[in-house]
Amino acid sequence: MNKESGAILVLSGPSGAGKSSLINKIIKDIGPTYFSISTTTRAMREGEIDGVDYHFVSEEVFAQDIEAEMFLEYAVVHGNHYGTSLGPVKTALKEGKLVIFDIDVQGNDAVQNRLGDITTSVFITTPTLKELNKRLVNRSTDSDEVIANRLEMAKREVQRISEYDYLIVNDDLDEAAEILVSIAKAARMKIPTLQINEFIQMWEAQA
Amino acid sequence: MNKESGAILVLSGPSGAGKSSLINKIIKDIGPTYFSISTTTRAMREGEIDGVDYHFVSEEVFAQDIEAEMFLEYAVVHGNHYGTSLGPVKTALKEGKLVIFDIDVQGNDAVQNRLGDITTSVFITTPTLKELNKRLVNRSTDSDEVIANRLEMAKREVQRISEYDYLIVNDDLDEAAEILVSIAKAARMKIPTLQINEFIQMWEAQA
Repeated sequence: MNKESGAILVLSGPSGAGKSSLINKIIKDIGPTYFSISTTTRAMREGEIDGVDYHFVSEEVFAQDIEAEMFLEYAVVHGNHYGTSLGPVKTALKEGKLVIFDIDVQGNDAVQNRLGDITTSVFITTPTLKELNKRLVNRSTDSDEVIANRLEMAKREVQRISEYDYLIVNDDLDEAAEILVSIAKAARMKIPTLQINEFIQMWEAQA
Repeated sequence: MNKESGAILVLSGPSGAGKSSLINKIIKDIGPTYFSISTTTRAMREGEIDGVDYHFVSEEVFAQDIEAEMFLEYAVVHGNHYGTSLGPVKTALKEGKLVIFDIDVQGNDAVQNRLGDITTSVFITTPTLKELNKRLVNRSTDSDEVIANRLEMAKREVQRISEYDYLIVNDDLDEAAEILVSIAKAARMKIPTLQINEFIQMWEAQA
């Protein structure tokens, strides 16, 4: 019973809060995982790799995938489409993996509605908005306009922290990583309702 | 923000499922804890110590405590009163401790209603009813009548596993302990709604 099926870990939070650094730091400590790669219609940035950072597709292909119900969730952010393909997620769950999503508040909402019983959600943020601004400016990857957009989106997202199971304030990376490891290990133990119902029937019946 | 306040871990499951053994095995690995000691009107059994296993009180004292609203929850089980005093729990939470409750399904329900935002709940059971029967007979502490009562209660409780965040099937004690350690460490990170609201206000305002 224990550990026989996969589960989902949703990570949300502003770009610049350090989600990627945190994931890279803990990935070897939390057992078999599948990191869900989103599909997007936005332009590839310098240094990004198709199929690693995102699956980069045209608006036409994205529209076809919507039509074919291939997305677990999709949304428009800053004028571009972003979506999560269902197929690889199902496969990873069957293999007993912890599926990690780096998605926004809208995405979390969609995942909770579809797969809430096996999902643990974590909101990761900087200690303050000011600190977020500083980190975004310092990493020098975004234009002033993009940074302004990110800060506005962050303000809206932070308002919805209470929709998450856990909040991690990423002030000290080591401390934040230690917390996330515990949460990720526990997340793996979430058991689907269907499997619980089977267990209940089996528990009493077995002679 | 992280770790500044306590949280609650509820453990439920049939008597004989191994909750006490599990707690004893993990207690040194999960940081500062307060193990909530229930108050009961049932007779003390051989080997039990007042103030360690339970606070043993008369029906009169129990009724006075109900009147004074001193219980987080209380219930009647097998004809005896059992309750959880609120005072020591509040103190332990203020000290940042993980408060562990060994309570039944009714008790979990009451705790969820009062303190759900900082509570993680775990149902611990044997692999089967037959195995539970075997363990209860083997430990030779209960009469046939008491064992029959426990089995009937277990059948009713197992039906409500879906009210819990996690299910642990205690087949292998080491494996079950490893799972419980992860869940307990994550449980400590649950943040009260009130504190999240304060954080949201502070996050944007701080210059």
